[in-house]
Amino acid sequence: MSDLLRWRTVATPAMIEAFDDSATIAHALAWEVALARAQGAAGVIAPTVAEAIADSLTGLRIDPAELAVEAALAGTLAIPLVARARAALGGEAASALHRAATSQDVADSVLMMQVRRAGALLQADLDRVVAGLRARALTYRDTPAIGRTLLQDAMPVAFGLRLAQGAAGVAEGRRALDNSVARHAVLQWGGAAGTRAGVDGRGETIAAHMAAALDLGRAPPWHARRVGVGALAAALGLVIGALGKVARDVSLLAQNGIGEVREPAIAGRGGSSAMAHKRNPTGCQVALSAATRAPGLVAGVLAGLPQEQERGLGGWQAEGPALADLFLLASGSAAALAVVAEGLEVDEAAIARNLRAAALGDDIGESGAIIAALLGAGD
Amino acid sequence: MSDLLRWRTVATPAMIEAFDDSATIAHALAWEVALARAQGAAGVIAPTVAEAIADSLTGLRIDPAELAVEAALAGTLAIPLVARARAALGGEAASALHRAATSQDVADSVLMMQVRRAGALLQADLDRVVAGLRARALTYRDTPAIGRTLLQDAMPVAFGLRLAQGAAGVAEGRRALDNSVARHAVLQWGGAAGTRAGVDGRGETIAAHMAAALDLGRAPPWHARRVGVGALAAALGLVIGALGKVARDVSLLAQNGIGEVREPAIAGRGGSSAMAHKRNPTGCQVALSAATRAPGLVAGVLAGLPQEQERGLGGWQAEGPALADLFLLASGSAAALAVVAEGLEVDEAAIARNLRAAALGDDIGESGAIIAALLGAGD
Amino acid sequence: MSDLLRWRTVATPAMIEAFDDSATIAHALAWEVALARAQGAAGVIAPTVAEAIADSLTGLRIDPAELAVEAALAGTLAIPLVARARAALGGEAASALHRAATSQDVADSVLMMQVRRAGALLQADLDRVVAGLRARALTYRDTPAIGRTLLQDAMPVAFGLRLAQGAAGVAEGRRALDNSVARHAVLQWGGAAGTRAGVDGRGETIAAHMAAALDLGRAPPWHARRVGVGALAAALGLVIGALGKVARDVSLLAQNGIGEVREPAIAGRGGSSAMAHKRNPTGCQVALSAATRAPGLVAGVLAGLPQEQERGLGGWQAEGPALADLFLLASGSAAALAVVAEGLEVDEAAIARNLRAAALGDDIGESGAIIAALLGAGD
Amino acid sequence: MSDLLRWRTVATPAMIEAFDDSATIAHALAWEVALARAQGAAGVIAPTVAEAIADSLTGLRIDPAELAVEAALAGTLAIPLVARARAALGGEAASALHRAATSQDVADSVLMMQVRRAGALLQADLDRVVAGLRARALTYRDTPAIGRTLLQDAMPVAFGLRLAQGAAGVAEGRRALDNSVARHAVLQWGGAAGTRAGVDGRGETIAAHMAAALDLGRAPPWHARRVGVGALAAALGLVIGALGKVARDVSLLAQNGIGEVREPAIAGRGGSSAMAHKRNPTGCQVALSAATRAPGLVAGVLAGLPQEQERGLGGWQAEGPALADLFLLASGSAAALAVVAEGLEVDEAAIARNLRAAALGDDIGESGAIIAALLGAGD
Repeated sequence: MSDLLRWRTVATPAMIEAFDDSATIAHALAWEVALARAQGAAGVIAPTVAEAIADSLTGLRIDPAELAVEAALAGTLAIPLVARARAALGGEAASALHRAATSQDVADSVLMMQVRRAGALLQADLDRVVAGLRARALTYRDTPAIGRTLLQDAMPVAFGLRLAQGAAGVAEGRRALDNSVARHAVLQWGGAAGTRAGVDGRGETIAAHMAAALDLGRAPPWHARRVGVGALAAALGLVIGALGKVARDVSLLAQNGIGEVREPAIAGRGGSSAMAHKRNPTGCQVALSAATRAPGLVAGVLAGLPQEQERGLGGWQAEGPALADLFLLASGSAAALAVVAEGLEVDEAAIARNLRAAALGDDIGESGAIIAALLGAGD
Repeated sequence: MSDLLRWRTVATPAMIEAFDDSATIAHALAWEVALARAQGAAGVIAPTVAEAIADSLTGLRIDPAELAVEAALAGTLAIPLVARARAALGGEAASALHRAATSQDVADSVLMMQVRRAGALLQADLDRVVAGLRARALTYRDTPAIGRTLLQDAMPVAFGLRLAQGAAGVAEGRRALDNSVARHAVLQWGGAAGTRAGVDGRGETIAAHMAAALDLGRAPPWHARRVGVGALAAALGLVIGALGKVARDVSLLAQNGIGEVREPAIAGRGGSSAMAHKRNPTGCQVALSAATRAPGLVAGVLAGLPQEQERGLGGWQAEGPALADLFLLASGSAAALAVVAEGLEVDEAAIARNLRAAALGDDIGESGAIIAALLGAGD
Repeated sequence: MSDLLRWRTVATPAMIEAFDDSATIAHALAWEVALARAQGAAGVIAPTVAEAIADSLTGLRIDPAELAVEAALAGTLAIPLVARARAALGGEAASALHRAATSQDVADSVLMMQVRRAGALLQADLDRVVAGLRARALTYRDTPAIGRTLLQDAMPVAFGLRLAQGAAGVAEGRRALDNSVARHAVLQWGGAAGTRAGVDGRGETIAAHMAAALDLGRAPPWHARRVGVGALAAALGLVIGALGKVARDVSLLAQNGIGEVREPAIAGRGGSSAMAHKRNPTGCQVALSAATRAPGLVAGVLAGLPQEQERGLGGWQAEGPALADLFLLASGSAAALAVVAEGLEVDEAAIARNLRAAALGDDIGESGAIIAALLGAGD
Repeated sequence: MSDLLRWRTVATPAMIEAFDDSATIAHALAWEVALARAQGAAGVIAPTVAEAIADSLTGLRIDPAELAVEAALAGTLAIPLVARARAALGGEAASALHRAATSQDVADSVLMMQVRRAGALLQADLDRVVAGLRARALTYRDTPAIGRTLLQDAMPVAFGLRLAQGAAGVAEGRRALDNSVARHAVLQWGGAAGTRAGVDGRGETIAAHMAAALDLGRAPPWHARRVGVGALAAALGLVIGALGKVARDVSLLAQNGIGEVREPAIAGRGGSSAMAHKRNPTGCQVALSAATRAPGLVAGVLAGLPQEQERGLGGWQAEGPALADLFLLASGSAAALAVVAEGLEVDEAAIARNLRAAALGDDIGESGAIIAALLGAGD
């Protein structure tokens, strides 16, 4: 349950890296460089000073543990980080650094740089899940199986229909995330009270320069307008829920007495410390655990939306960790189910046996047409 | 705290009506008529039988209280409703009714008919909030006021900037809701196991006919693919949160000792049973109460996403009430804040006094440009 | 999804009645009578005036629908209710009514009167669930069955062990609720700012009198100290979750291919509008749906705890509906599972067959001793 | 937002340590030693073998990062940990290690050892908050101040009353936590399917021995009976909410224009990277951020309660991280508010000025008696 073990067991290494200390500090320094260069280009500070800042910060080494202690005291990361950078710079450059900026400008922009990176990582794993499910949905598009509703045998379906439904759900979640990242992963820069004061009316020019340099979208300052953060959290909740639906089905189908599928056998995975005979649906476990945790994390972000005036007290500070946790959970879920989807073992004999036991015929209706529609639905 | 009082005090009459018994039953009967006519047009049942069904159901009167008792026993609304309709019909029409359909087809479609109606109602009130805030944001686009961060005086802003931020947040929430309703308020029809079995391969034709008749979008059956429902809930959470942000600010600005705004005076509203001198921010109260409740309701819908196989046990039954509650809360919040936004009393003398007390000058930076950007942002 | 249908399908009639309009209004009037009589006994108002108030309010008829409209405008139930009572009284009694009281005094006390009634109703149904499960746990305390972990066959257990675990969980939830109601269902009376001003220092005497008359516990005013409300909500969350665990197991055991139990057959219950052959686990559905919805409702109450100063804006108004919803959900869940527990059909042949299929022997370890410990654990 | 920065900025070092890798691994090894010794004492394994296990595991060094990679693959911490321990032991001791135990036995017990340690840490900080508030409540028990309801001036109160209300709320939360830890921080040991098979009927003796050695309470195996975990999470939610109420009030009272209190000045704390003049309520920020995040975390635990059969798939894996997060948040909130409560700066002149401005007299009613009752209420 320790911090390291906790995340190592549920998130992908790449996603952990996207939100780790090094990334956070590197993004923050990059943001200060982008601000300086943009202000240099706009004539707010001297271009040579901007380059001096860039040079100095590029080489700056900051120990995360020390910075964390200082940040805990200050209540914000930016204060000690800027103090260290200024100490390294000295002179005119020190006072030019972080000009017309506030801590939340840095914190929000860093978070969005991480969101952009994390979003790309996640999309790749989601694509694998969708592709794996699609391939099997097509393989079994004509295979009659007993459909089940309310956990009881209902009427026949194509075995592939259930997989196609799962694929379409994940694709829809992926789409929601894609849209949210594209729309809401934007630069934050507004200065102390969100007015971009102190830059001689060159604010929009500077913002445009910074957004381009940092590969972020543009928007008016949004220090206390957090609907975008809420939308990102919600999209991750949809993704994790859609993955959870796939895991629910796979784990139910893998039960003894049903046995229509099994998770692929992977050395060292799915064992039991007490029972050597088991092949546990460990990938499904990761996804279902994530699906249990995610809704509350989304709720925490939504609960923080009514933030006070120009910058909230408590609400916005609650967002970053929740968003990071959601990405970490989503990454673990998607990666685990990618392996499951790509290697799912299907037992056609069991499918046929269960269908016969239900004694409800084998009319799969328009399963094929529906599968085709579902597999196109996420596009 | 009773049921009637509960909703009467937080939702608009029109929204209550959208989700009330009469609406539910009327939509369910309309759905059965649409199914019959679509099957009649597709040659699955005789057109004359379809019209007999339409005639009979149009005149059918069902007592909600009796139906509720039966539905509680059956576990679904459709079973007793169809039984009553069949009893009224008799003969061939009785057996043609509800052909190739399942209870969830009705329940989901009815919910989406209500969503479509509720969405339109809500958009109208949201537009009023946005318009009210926009108008005042423009009035005060050059009025310097003290900005506040972390509940402390920070640096000056245009008084209109805060209102514009609020307007942009609500507009963004409105946009998310609009997109969700357009994309996810779709017909449900899949039959017992979601395969559209039993209609001679005419499923897509029938679905198209029904969707047009009921003014719903089209999609493959989604009995256990609930990402769309989750997206609707999340969009409502964003709307309610964005409204809560406006309420937070108005109520903080209306405090004694600050006094920059007051809710408009309305006869019978905002009083106290103990203190005749008070003008309580009652509109803000409604919005903040809604913003406290909404995140958990969203979480409840997201928690239900991993639904079992072809139709879930518990998860989907949890969605309808939560979605209805979210619309009810959103309606009350939007309507209350529409009144506040349209009639907000602004005390320019207090604004100036607070600004002077802060002694931080009156440089509002690029507030005007940012206001302009914000007021265009929701389009 | 309408309001009536919604609650009629998930809550017991008695619980709906506990929170309905009539109960709310009756409790509010009883509270005003108790206040008047306590103030009469304490010499704050004339005893004859107190009795005049009691006489008048006892006969007062108030139309819930009209009151609701007025309450929606006023933002509180007490204002229009007191106004109507005063109009009926006139003279000295009119001004003595509601003396030294505020709207929240009434609202909170009414809620707690409902909590006390609702708690008693719920305990009765929970006792039925526990008793039903206990009886069967003892019947099958020596019956070997295959145990399942992570949805896979694990090692043998006594079939009764699983039922005893369910019973102990529900008993623990019941205990938490019992403790919470006993500790937190207390009188609210503090007056405008929670100081009990205006009663000549007789506050504690009056409070004691009122608490006794209304059968509520005593506590200092708690207008903005809401931990008790949070504890009640949390206890209901535990109850509903514990019931959900039982429902999860019953529904899994009832699956085709496993078939170790079935919900009892009840005329009109568990059918399908499309599939006559099904016996759906409808009781489990009610319980699992409640378990999906409850956590978010609890979160909404907890989110409202940081209430402002002497009376919050939004936070406390969010509590009553959530608490009512939680009781309504719990009642439906408990009542449904009481029927399931009392009538559960157990198929010993299927149990034996599944155990044999697992081929893991029949050593049930110390199941019997653990069952005995579990069945005593809730006491 | 990185992992390290995230927790370093919101939790106390001692609490981070309680849940860190070293603690987790040390507890897990201690658990295996306690199991071996208990089985040695009970004659299930040879006492000399038990001591050989104790000797070997005491000296065992395990790299957390390597273990985490293995645990991520295995899906559980215990499998690789036991494998490493067995490799170090060899021979008879290797096979005696972890006898009759399962991974969840270790994981749950480790979590509860951490809960017990974390609970003690937290109680100490909560006591500081309560003591600090109590002291000031008594200092200002007769100081009239304007009370505020719905964020508006209401009627006078003793300034100390508000602080006493805060103290009583935190004390009530502390009490709930204390009760939950005492009741639910219990040993987990049940073996593969929760039957304590394989120990010759000596299960209860072994469990008693282990519980004593590990300083945990005793209970029947609770692999899938998780009400206790839910109760712990809920109690933490109450604690964090009660702290949030104090923070809400302090931050509102500290606003410019009101100015009745200020957080104590602490070097390096509460500053702004953009505004040197500010003294931000940074302690309140930590507490309010925690109060925003906690309800969703509680909901996540409650959502997982309906766990499957003898061991759940996803639900229980979601609990540990949430419980750890709740303790981490609570620790940061309590520690921050302890500093605030102990050093709160009260401006009596501002209190008097605001009271005069309200022009509602200075009758504080029975504030003194209520303060006395509140300060005794948590005992």
